[in-house]
Amino acid sequence: MSAVSTPNGKETELNRIKELLDRKDLPGLLDFLSGLSIPDLADLLMLLAPSARVAVFRLLPKEISSEVFAYLESSHMNTLLRDLTDQETQHLLANMRPDDRTALFEELPGRAIQRLLNLLSPEDRKEALSLLGYPEESVGRFMTPDYIAVRPHWTVAQALEHIRARGTDSETIYNIYVTDDSWRLLDDIELRRLILADPAEKIERLMDHVFISLNALEDREQAVRTMERYDVFALPVVDAEGILLGIVTADDVLDVSREEATEDFHKSAAVTPLRTSYHEANAFSLFTSRIGWLVSLVFINLLSSGVIAFFEKTLASAIALAFFMPLLIDSGGNAGSQSATLVVRALATGEIRLSQWIKVLFREILVGVMLGMVMGLASGLLGVFRGGYRVGLVVGVSMVAIIILANLVGVLLPFLLTRFKLDPAVASSPLITSIADCMGLFIYFSIAHWLLGLP
Amino acid sequence: MSAVSTPNGKETELNRIKELLDRKDLPGLLDFLSGLSIPDLADLLMLLAPSARVAVFRLLPKEISSEVFAYLESSHMNTLLRDLTDQETQHLLANMRPDDRTALFEELPGRAIQRLLNLLSPEDRKEALSLLGYPEESVGRFMTPDYIAVRPHWTVAQALEHIRARGTDSETIYNIYVTDDSWRLLDDIELRRLILADPAEKIERLMDHVFISLNALEDREQAVRTMERYDVFALPVVDAEGILLGIVTADDVLDVSREEATEDFHKSAAVTPLRTSYHEANAFSLFTSRIGWLVSLVFINLLSSGVIAFFEKTLASAIALAFFMPLLIDSGGNAGSQSATLVVRALATGEIRLSQWIKVLFREILVGVMLGMVMGLASGLLGVFRGGYRVGLVVGVSMVAIIILANLVGVLLPFLLTRFKLDPAVASSPLITSIADCMGLFIYFSIAHWLLGLP
Repeated sequence: MSAVSTPNGKETELNRIKELLDRKDLPGLLDFLSGLSIPDLADLLMLLAPSARVAVFRLLPKEISSEVFAYLESSHMNTLLRDLTDQETQHLLANMRPDDRTALFEELPGRAIQRLLNLLSPEDRKEALSLLGYPEESVGRFMTPDYIAVRPHWTVAQALEHIRARGTDSETIYNIYVTDDSWRLLDDIELRRLILADPAEKIERLMDHVFISLNALEDREQAVRTMERYDVFALPVVDAEGILLGIVTADDVLDVSREEATEDFHKSAAVTPLRTSYHEANAFSLFTSRIGWLVSLVFINLLSSGVIAFFEKTLASAIALAFFMPLLIDSGGNAGSQSATLVVRALATGEIRLSQWIKVLFREILVGVMLGMVMGLASGLLGVFRGGYRVGLVVGVSMVAIIILANLVGVLLPFLLTRFKLDPAVASSPLITSIADCMGLFIYFSIAHWLLGLP
Repeated sequence: MSAVSTPNGKETELNRIKELLDRKDLPGLLDFLSGLSIPDLADLLMLLAPSARVAVFRLLPKEISSEVFAYLESSHMNTLLRDLTDQETQHLLANMRPDDRTALFEELPGRAIQRLLNLLSPEDRKEALSLLGYPEESVGRFMTPDYIAVRPHWTVAQALEHIRARGTDSETIYNIYVTDDSWRLLDDIELRRLILADPAEKIERLMDHVFISLNALEDREQAVRTMERYDVFALPVVDAEGILLGIVTADDVLDVSREEATEDFHKSAAVTPLRTSYHEANAFSLFTSRIGWLVSLVFINLLSSGVIAFFEKTLASAIALAFFMPLLIDSGGNAGSQSATLVVRALATGEIRLSQWIKVLFREILVGVMLGMVMGLASGLLGVFRGGYRVGLVVGVSMVAIIILANLVGVLLPFLLTRFKLDPAVASSPLITSIADCMGLFIYFSIAHWLLGLP
């Protein structure tokens, strides 16, 4: 039976837990819980009332409970930690994987971190502090030091024996790392090669000295790109001297990949990335993540207002010009948003690099001309229909110019931002739209002024 | 030495290959190539001239060359296939992994597929046709039938023996699947459990009957979400009867995750998702992916024009009203884009569900009111400064109303689209901006008409 639960299935399971709790049938409850997967257990815990939640959590076997805990939303981690005794918290922390522990500390307020650090063994505390020492969003922050390393002079049989001894504590046993005596990384070997090899063979005979590694200080986005590129399930992390510090695994990289994409989505709409999930965010934090850009864009919009004020006489002398304003400026904004989004995303995934800007620019000029021609023809016809052929000419020519220029701004701004070491994602749709509006009004009124002989 | 190459490193390697080719030092070239990783080999191949490319490709050992081939961009696959003999193509295809083969067929024109299918062994052809039979973007399309299955009554030693025999052909040996004699999936077991278990133990004693599976007809997005949720490196794929058909692995899921995010990015800017990468797309395919939405949005923009025409007398009697038009309508569009993007992304990642729309709506009304108040106050002051307190009042009140309403449209549209089984990503920034502009103009002129007693 597949354990992916439907919302409906979850209700059934929830009622069953409540019923067993009411009957105080703890062996029955434990039996029922042991048939559930870790993420489902976490979901069910979060649906229970606080008192029932602690009761069920305490019932779980130690190694399960720390895994379930790592799946909770941070607000639930926080409340649960308040209900547990120091001794229970100590057991919980000791059983957590180091990378999950770092993630927990990242979510908690300073005082809570201090309390938890004091509950760790001296060894774990040192490890936790060192992992927390890496910059936010760096590879170091989500690596785990629980990996398996072997030496070149060992035999395959020795290595397998070592894996059997260390295996239960390790995040993965499928990627084995070969280091020298000072823990310098020499190679990686897949477990399948060891299993398929002669047990008497020396490890060094299996080495090909081709391996991929990450630096602990690199941006975590690099881990995503590298894992996508090399199709591996785990990557070793080294320091500047090539000393093996830990590993990052595909499950964590998949989460990072989604988080980074979400951040980029939010930036694309001029939203400062949230510190929590959208689901967990409160109204005030949503407000603060949005108001900054909204107010900043007012200044660009005032430039548009300035353009209108500058051409006030032109507009007053032919109020019918106002009719085509939304069409012209919106179309420019739309075309600019399209090209900016295409370029920002291609830069983010590494599909294109800064050095390729001329090739991209050339192609986008061609695209802009094609788009401009079609849109110019369509809006020119609308103009003829509404106000005669001279109006049609003004509208059509303006549209061509606006589309081509707005498209160019959309292409160039992300490259320029990258060039100056800024985040290309700043070239959001709202920013591009505001710039395109200002440009569009200027082009439209200039052409009208010139072609129609208006004041 | 880490093999992640810098653009610079690539040039050195490229020159080395050319030099060895010129000297016809094939053993030296082969030796040099064997020190490179598969993705790097693919990159280098694509940088070589066509004749050198075929020469280097032919030199690669069979099992390497088919892996390298799978990494090429589709246009390069196509040209390389034209240069290879039928026999070489046959070897290449026979050595490719089934999921890579499906991906290749997806990229090729119909006639090329037919030629390749004829070169496959009858068995491989049947497999390829069955994989190609699953809907585009379904789980079936990127699964591989190369997995390891064991039976409940086998001993651990028998299972390990089977893994050693089948291991080299299998996509992963770390997730083992337990099936009954009719290939119905009963459980999954990690290789580490087999390695750490007593060899004489029966498989059925290790089974917990808790496993997660995917249906071959499900959207591939489901594979991403499930793997993110359950933190596994491989997932079994079954049909409606629970028969094991294949597996999907984390490396492919990571690629799908990125592709799906890219598609959603493009949709967010009203770009129809490209069939190739942005890097490979030509100007005409970029044009066709963008013109549809640009033209469609013209119709919504004409509604805005209609609003202006309707209020033409109001505008003509107080041309100064035009000054605040860009500020008011852009701010509405920006606020709407922000909320739409937040909701679309949260729906896409499964953070929120359709059923939670009331909770989200309530929170966003609160956010909209806060944003509206701040923006209304700021723009009201600008209005007072520009045209006296009555203009300030009109601008301020309009801004509050526009922000609150545009924000609501941004929240509700993605939910409505989802409700009617449409893709919420259709609620793109350009669409929301166009709707908000139309609404904004109507609100602004209505309030001006009413508060200023204009015609």
